[in-house]
Amino acid sequence: MKIALLGGTGDIGQGLALRWAYDTDHEVIVGSRDPEKAREMADEYEVELSSRGVDRSINGFANEMAADRADVVVLAVPAYHVRDTVEAVADRLDDVDVLVTPAVGMDRDEDGFHYKPPGVGSVTQLVAEAAPDDVPVVGAFHNLAADRLADLGIELDLDTLLVADDADAKETVRLLADGIVGLRPLDAGGLANAAEVESLTPLLINLAMNNEGMHDVGVTFE
Amino acid sequence: MKIALLGGTGDIGQGLALRWAYDTDHEVIVGSRDPEKAREMADEYEVELSSRGVDRSINGFANEMAADRADVVVLAVPAYHVRDTVEAVADRLDDVDVLVTPAVGMDRDEDGFHYKPPGVGSVTQLVAEAAPDDVPVVGAFHNLAADRLADLGIELDLDTLLVADDADAKETVRLLADGIVGLRPLDAGGLANAAEVESLTPLLINLAMNNEGMHDVGVTFE
Repeated sequence: MKIALLGGTGDIGQGLALRWAYDTDHEVIVGSRDPEKAREMADEYEVELSSRGVDRSINGFANEMAADRADVVVLAVPAYHVRDTVEAVADRLDDVDVLVTPAVGMDRDEDGFHYKPPGVGSVTQLVAEAAPDDVPVVGAFHNLAADRLADLGIELDLDTLLVADDADAKETVRLLADGIVGLRPLDAGGLANAAEVESLTPLLINLAMNNEGMHDVGVTFE
Repeated sequence: MKIALLGGTGDIGQGLALRWAYDTDHEVIVGSRDPEKAREMADEYEVELSSRGVDRSINGFANEMAADRADVVVLAVPAYHVRDTVEAVADRLDDVDVLVTPAVGMDRDEDGFHYKPPGVGSVTQLVAEAAPDDVPVVGAFHNLAADRLADLGIELDLDTLLVADDADAKETVRLLADGIVGLRPLDAGGLANAAEVESLTPLLINLAMNNEGMHDVGVTFE
């Protein structure tokens, strides 16, 4: 498949781009509001992959162009850019199978990080509301240890939680996640169950802050 | 230490009672609103321990009596009984080192389970508000796989998350948790961070409902 990572120059975008390019045959497209930055990062990812013996072509485009070329679009942008980004690419999503959202709304105070969902209940549901009606939305990749994800030398051994109301779209993302070595997709229910999934992200950051040796902590369910 | 498990006849109370009695030298006291039921369950726990070669005396009392005799009081009651239970035992907590709360507010609809905290932000914070001012509150044991906990034949291999504002009380509960073989306590921050910890419980139930082989799923952070 062709996977566009909008905001694919940030940490979660970088990690997913590298892992999909390294572990699978999917075509990876890097999107950014700044097409020059997208091209630069795509080149960096190619160099990183090449240094590990994998020659892959990764292209960078403005978000709109990246979305236009993709089967799957991942909104790898901060929560406060999610609505803008969906609106910017909405008319490019006609042929897209699924829109994937890993963003989480958080704030921070002296006590640490706190989950702050938008009024609609979760960022995942906000994306579903903002997306064109015929584009199914899947919440996934919210709780990954970003530094681990982006370091191809590290075995992941992580779970990722999927929420979606559209079974076919969820299955598409399940297969995409399953293609990344060491990443196990689990079904966390429908879009209405997204808040509990997103809440894990500030919890992981709080654990990293409060416990020795948990700088880049991830989660597994057994 | 003397640990009173109020509502110690329910599943989480049963599991903690058995594990502390089996793995440690702490004195375990079972509390219930119905003292007869408390005594019956305490007898059952003794029989279970005896069948595994451990002869321990476990006493059962009305919650007030149980709290009166304890150094540590665990509110192993459903979220909707937390306030009543704290109020019922409030004048018995003078000599108690720490009040521990594992309860989580949830509701269920056709989409699965959802986190529903009380207005104050979390059940843990509700307990802190209801408790006498000089009794420190620690949130812990929210996310344990209850059937696994109560089956002494099963190795736990689980993490439990602690939240508290009182460092000494948190350390007391950390040591109590650490005494249970296969249970690793982690520091999730202050009482203000309790909501993200409690949110994990409906998530675990949703994972159990939506994935094969996850009937009694637990969580670990690595």
